[in-house]
Amino acid sequence: MVITSTANKQIKAIRKLSHKKYRRESGLFYVEGLRQITSAMKHGALIEKLVFCDSLLESEFGRDLVEKADKENIPLLEVSEDVFLSISMKEGPQGLCAVVHQDLQALGQVDTLRGLWVALENVQDPGNLGTIMRTLDAVGGAGIILVGDKNTDATHPTSVRASMGAIFTLQVLQASLPELREWLSDHEMDLVGAVCGPVSDYRGYNYSDDIILFMGSEQKGLTTEAKSLCSGQVTIPMVGTVDSLNLANATSILLYEIFRTIHPMEEK
Amino acid sequence: MVITSTANKQIKAIRKLSHKKYRRESGLFYVEGLRQITSAMKHGALIEKLVFCDSLLESEFGRDLVEKADKENIPLLEVSEDVFLSISMKEGPQGLCAVVHQDLQALGQVDTLRGLWVALENVQDPGNLGTIMRTLDAVGGAGIILVGDKNTDATHPTSVRASMGAIFTLQVLQASLPELREWLSDHEMDLVGAVCGPVSDYRGYNYSDDIILFMGSEQKGLTTEAKSLCSGQVTIPMVGTVDSLNLANATSILLYEIFRTIHPMEEK
Repeated sequence: MVITSTANKQIKAIRKLSHKKYRRESGLFYVEGLRQITSAMKHGALIEKLVFCDSLLESEFGRDLVEKADKENIPLLEVSEDVFLSISMKEGPQGLCAVVHQDLQALGQVDTLRGLWVALENVQDPGNLGTIMRTLDAVGGAGIILVGDKNTDATHPTSVRASMGAIFTLQVLQASLPELREWLSDHEMDLVGAVCGPVSDYRGYNYSDDIILFMGSEQKGLTTEAKSLCSGQVTIPMVGTVDSLNLANATSILLYEIFRTIHPMEEK
Repeated sequence: MVITSTANKQIKAIRKLSHKKYRRESGLFYVEGLRQITSAMKHGALIEKLVFCDSLLESEFGRDLVEKADKENIPLLEVSEDVFLSISMKEGPQGLCAVVHQDLQALGQVDTLRGLWVALENVQDPGNLGTIMRTLDAVGGAGIILVGDKNTDATHPTSVRASMGAIFTLQVLQASLPELREWLSDHEMDLVGAVCGPVSDYRGYNYSDDIILFMGSEQKGLTTEAKSLCSGQVTIPMVGTVDSLNLANATSILLYEIFRTIHPMEEK
């Protein structure tokens, strides 16, 4: 049966997932596009349902995905073009989207953190959060920790899209600042804060193999309390007229600096 | 006289500047916010008019800016709160915006390029373009070159905002791909293309002092023709699952690598 009414109950529920409130209440989020859904399936995300529109699903790759999902007993929902366009948030919709279960954990439930992590204190922009996940995946990072109670949502459609599938490869943890402090008192882990000011040039810092890079919000940077938790602080030198970098760009520069110590360049 | 009608001819003309068509026809663009306007005034942008709303202009800094502009004979336009809100594109408007003359030059008119430049082939996203300008300013770069005929517009409101004032400190040049080829045949200049593939690791490349970093579009990267113009090519290694980085993040990583050779870290 093909759903042809945009007022269908299931379709209305999917559209509501653009709102944080409904994502929180349902524990679900919305994923669109072939690349994202491939990543979700490949990395074991729990998919509630896959929605497809036959006339929009032009590529063989897309049709194969639907077939594969069917074999894996993922519930399928076929919809008309009108209905698909009523839920799609993408220019040039590819006829495939999914409702996926969130997989957020509290930091307190995690015993050991290994590898490279990014902690973000009250990141505001979902596009920044998504591209940070994308770069973190590229350097082989383990996950992100959303610190504070004013963060944007990792499952915001813009964040999901900007992550290019990295949201399904990275662990996503949450903690308040006091929870982070408590966790650090029980665990030995390098927490390196990125700040503006007269601290170590980021190129001269001795990064550990297991490390959390701690970035502040777009507007305010790290709070004083957050800085007090750091085992080290680094800064990115600037010689022009702007007084800060975009958060995602700064994070990317630092992540690739840490990458340098993990993956030194091969000698020719 | 305070303008109180949102239908005022001047006000309507300002609102139209959100459209590329009207920016092109008028040669003007729209700038909002204290930081941006400070940068415009400091770096000698030609300001057509400054628009302010007394009740929204809360900070002393903002009032001083208006006074300074008046002394410099920049035409002032006082408007009511309603009118200001009808033109503002900013959350939390600060009561100050400006109409500024574009300062775009053709590459062909420029004889010598010195320092660090970024050329972008058909960049699509104005947010990316703006944050690239922001990072380029931070590393002391000279300017950007928009290559091709499908670029977003450097004076797009999102680009201007994301640049954090860097649009007023950097030169902005334009060229078609054939014009770039012709210019390069007459001028000796390193053009280093960022690509995916088995070329030099970006950390091992010998960057010149005068250099153009050449970045492709978000979707397609550099075209074959663009690559053929490059004197060298570099790639950013990735070890995760994503197959590319966000354009602005990749550019920032490369710019700070070039910065390394210009500004080596000070020994302690």
